[in-house]
Amino acid sequence: MAAYKAPLRDMRYLLHDVFQGANLASLPGFEEFTPDLLDAVLDEAAKITENVLHPLNRSGDEEGCRIENGQVRTPKGFPEAYQAFREGGWTSVSSDPAWGGQGLPRALNTLIEEMICSANVSFSLYPGLTHGACITLGRYASPELQETYLPKMVEGVWSGTMCLTEPHAGTDLGLLRTTARPLPDGSYSVTGTKIFITAGDHDLTENIIHLVLARLPDAPKGVGGISLFLVPKYVPDASGKPGEPNNVVASALEHKMGIKASATCVMNFDDSRGWMVGEPNKGLRALFTMMNTERLGVGLQGLALAEASYQGAATYALERLQGRSVAGPRFPDLPADPIIVHPDVRRMLLTQRAYAEGCRALAVWVAMALDNESRNPDPEERAAASDLVALMTPVVKALLTDLGSEAANLGMQVLGGHGYIREHGMEQYVRDCRIAQIYEGTNGIQALDLVGRKLPEGQGRLLRQFFHPVEAFIAEHSGNEALAPFIGPLQKVFGRLQQATGFIAERGMADPEEAGAASSDYLRLFGFTALAWLWARMVVVSMPKVGTHEDPTGFHVAKIATARFFMERVLPQTSGLFAAIMAGGGSMSTFPDEAFGDRN
Amino acid sequence: MAAYKAPLRDMRYLLHDVFQGANLASLPGFEEFTPDLLDAVLDEAAKITENVLHPLNRSGDEEGCRIENGQVRTPKGFPEAYQAFREGGWTSVSSDPAWGGQGLPRALNTLIEEMICSANVSFSLYPGLTHGACITLGRYASPELQETYLPKMVEGVWSGTMCLTEPHAGTDLGLLRTTARPLPDGSYSVTGTKIFITAGDHDLTENIIHLVLARLPDAPKGVGGISLFLVPKYVPDASGKPGEPNNVVASALEHKMGIKASATCVMNFDDSRGWMVGEPNKGLRALFTMMNTERLGVGLQGLALAEASYQGAATYALERLQGRSVAGPRFPDLPADPIIVHPDVRRMLLTQRAYAEGCRALAVWVAMALDNESRNPDPEERAAASDLVALMTPVVKALLTDLGSEAANLGMQVLGGHGYIREHGMEQYVRDCRIAQIYEGTNGIQALDLVGRKLPEGQGRLLRQFFHPVEAFIAEHSGNEALAPFIGPLQKVFGRLQQATGFIAERGMADPEEAGAASSDYLRLFGFTALAWLWARMVVVSMPKVGTHEDPTGFHVAKIATARFFMERVLPQTSGLFAAIMAGGGSMSTFPDEAFGDRN
Repeated sequence: MAAYKAPLRDMRYLLHDVFQGANLASLPGFEEFTPDLLDAVLDEAAKITENVLHPLNRSGDEEGCRIENGQVRTPKGFPEAYQAFREGGWTSVSSDPAWGGQGLPRALNTLIEEMICSANVSFSLYPGLTHGACITLGRYASPELQETYLPKMVEGVWSGTMCLTEPHAGTDLGLLRTTARPLPDGSYSVTGTKIFITAGDHDLTENIIHLVLARLPDAPKGVGGISLFLVPKYVPDASGKPGEPNNVVASALEHKMGIKASATCVMNFDDSRGWMVGEPNKGLRALFTMMNTERLGVGLQGLALAEASYQGAATYALERLQGRSVAGPRFPDLPADPIIVHPDVRRMLLTQRAYAEGCRALAVWVAMALDNESRNPDPEERAAASDLVALMTPVVKALLTDLGSEAANLGMQVLGGHGYIREHGMEQYVRDCRIAQIYEGTNGIQALDLVGRKLPEGQGRLLRQFFHPVEAFIAEHSGNEALAPFIGPLQKVFGRLQQATGFIAERGMADPEEAGAASSDYLRLFGFTALAWLWARMVVVSMPKVGTHEDPTGFHVAKIATARFFMERVLPQTSGLFAAIMAGGGSMSTFPDEAFGDRN
Repeated sequence: MAAYKAPLRDMRYLLHDVFQGANLASLPGFEEFTPDLLDAVLDEAAKITENVLHPLNRSGDEEGCRIENGQVRTPKGFPEAYQAFREGGWTSVSSDPAWGGQGLPRALNTLIEEMICSANVSFSLYPGLTHGACITLGRYASPELQETYLPKMVEGVWSGTMCLTEPHAGTDLGLLRTTARPLPDGSYSVTGTKIFITAGDHDLTENIIHLVLARLPDAPKGVGGISLFLVPKYVPDASGKPGEPNNVVASALEHKMGIKASATCVMNFDDSRGWMVGEPNKGLRALFTMMNTERLGVGLQGLALAEASYQGAATYALERLQGRSVAGPRFPDLPADPIIVHPDVRRMLLTQRAYAEGCRALAVWVAMALDNESRNPDPEERAAASDLVALMTPVVKALLTDLGSEAANLGMQVLGGHGYIREHGMEQYVRDCRIAQIYEGTNGIQALDLVGRKLPEGQGRLLRQFFHPVEAFIAEHSGNEALAPFIGPLQKVFGRLQQATGFIAERGMADPEEAGAASSDYLRLFGFTALAWLWARMVVVSMPKVGTHEDPTGFHVAKIATARFFMERVLPQTSGLFAAIMAGGGSMSTFPDEAFGDRN
């Protein structure tokens, strides 16, 4: 199996050098998060992910989950690993200290989450969903519910889920049918079937708290008639311990392409007691907070698997002896050269690397905006950060998972036939990554969110949070000749993004289908512009360090070389995206529906 | 599970309308292959693939192969299906009539192979390898070996394999260690271990004939010391029936990402009797014939799964009710619109379709060259066809499998979460397709073959077989205004291909690593140029039929609409490929080797 080693050097570089993460400590409540503390936490996270979670990654995939006597069992070692994880305090890292959480900055937690997902993305889903549920409960639940549930959930002895999807209603929640009937004591009787429920049942915690979307008896049709309910697997007794079973049953496990150690359940609620969270018929709003958090988290899965796959492929390419360099034997004393000598192998590895490191920078940058959104004392700064987060959430989710899948496939390709067999673990990364392009809103939905909601909002108000800093950066550095190979391509792609934005705004106003037709290509163009900007920023940071005592290992040399590869060999694909967008959607909208099916 | 229906209309269109396949009948030996006969064969192939092979596709994936008492067992139903397949004459369709084959034109057989692979790619590998082995034996084996083995193999009661790869030697066959010691009777004792052997053992035929690469005791090192041996599982007795076991044992089955119903074996040869095929130390040459055939066949797997995935996705998109058109409800009486109304869903489906139909045209075009290579009475025509096949083989293999994987992933994405679970069979297409980018020479190796061998050969002699017809086509149609939306983009991409070719020829001469750095992007640029040309050719054929009695169902309308989508929304990606190629390989070659591993 491919080993995993947390990329701590790159993480520290982002926190301290690129984003001057020390500034985090200037936010109220973050005073203690000095660079030293951040580094110490990263080191500890590396240990548990490398030593406890990653060793269970392949065995978990082979074994999968199963139902035994109506109870889901996770693979061998998962309960013990979860125990160690919980005892190490990792379930509560970014939770509210008011409920026992550690309140870590999101910028730091993003890197921790990346490590967890690189090591074992199936495992990550058990604590991951709980955290999202806590955020929703922390914001919308009644004080009584919060008191009863949040401390246990933050501590990780209870876990949480999101129960949205029904067999006939995936993205379109307006179609859902689960019902909630009011009971005399103010609670509700919830009945219905939910599918694709991550961590719907398992043996890691003593109770499982479901957040369930359902309809009240008198609810209006559509999404305006959906309420949110807290439905525990066991109803807590007077002492707060799990009491009576609540008729919440995992009736089946989905058989999936990957993330096989994650229990994806069909959940049956049958006259199960629930408590409303938030206001009647406003359940979707309550869930949106959670969904944004989850979307960024899913983006991290893509980044994490790009990183893990890169590591496996690079190690293999440096060791595997096969063939000779086309320029003549590089290691004549060996029976063959290592395959790293082949330009096409280097192309694949550098693409993976440019994706992983660029996406990591993007994730940390957005996470810092999250920290500012919640902590900055200046209301204008908070609002600006909030706009940025709203704008970038669909980009991070879709771009990082699309590139994660591409990277995982490249890593597998580097190993050739050995990548296709399960032994090396490289094909598992491909399978595990693939779901991230789908769940929490398919990447097509993300693209539609970007062009349909985020672009028009406040006449482009959100957009300015990205366009302005990029413009300022280009203006600041465009005179610097040493930076020209980086600023030039950035300027070009940014110009294209601006043009495409104008085109979509204009066309989409007249015909919303035009915006839809452009959406996926536009999101990718947007994402690559962000990556180009971040790579250029990293070059600005790294260039002065090259050849100095600050670069004894060549870290900064490699960083600049990767940036150059990105600009020269990866970024050019944006010209095709631009041309496709500008061609408009006529070729899609005019295609006769019936011709999709009958081709005779 | 997604249904499969052979795209007979499109196949007939290619044979009869686009390539005027009736001309096949003018080749000596093909006189009987009138359009009517071609259609009748396609109809029969559709029946067995739809009704016999496809129903076993998902169950075969779920069950996989296993070893029982040292003998590989294929999944339930496979032996019976193989029996029906063999009795229907499908194992011998394109084999030499001298050995009992039906000698069908390759152009026809290509379409049959596509259907088999769409229906059940795992199944296709059992008869598929046999056919390649027969070609090699037909050309290089002694008359005695041919008499003993070929009739049984063509009939399909015996099957064949290619035993090349060893644990430490994948692409680099020069490293292999299996030995062949001469025995007094002129046969050899073969000993060694081979891995990744497709159909290495199974229960479909009464004997299995392995073509094994091995070294003679005095063989020179490297690829110049490899000979080819025929090693049967059972040595035929005097009556020609399978006799004594020959110490050929499948010691393990590989656990793979996909094609799980295909037995991929670790094969042990232990003092097994073999007979040399061809000359000593020239085993690779003997195998090259087989490898080219196999490479085209693997390309068809990509095309086949693009088609199958398209069908599953289109059916789902037309039926699945969810959400509303962004332009307002399209079907207000239904609870929701079918997802086909969403532009981004249409984008995915049209991309799949443009890939599948374009790649099918490319495959048939190259197959016709194969027919001319072997049958054309004019030696110059034969030589030209041979050049074209040599040039296009790596392009077909890599392009069709890369696009097959992309298409299969798009199809899965259309189904969202339902695509990720195994039930619908869409994720199986992704897993089954993935190996095609790897085996028979990874797609990186194909790209290197194109730029390193095929381009320079005879100072670009091979290239002319593609460039000249494209030039002529553009010249013929560039004045036609109705065709401008198709000829314009073709002209542009063809110009880029010519420029990139010149760039690579010049740079690659001075530094072979430069050619390697450009290779994958160049192969894709080449392939997309070929697709653009074929789409334009299809438009020329279809346009006059639109609105006439020849197009009662709108087939030609859809064909032109798909061509438009391809030109406007897919082809633009070539501008990025062009720019990446022209940036040169400096960013790859200068990256320090050690930095790939250690990132501190």
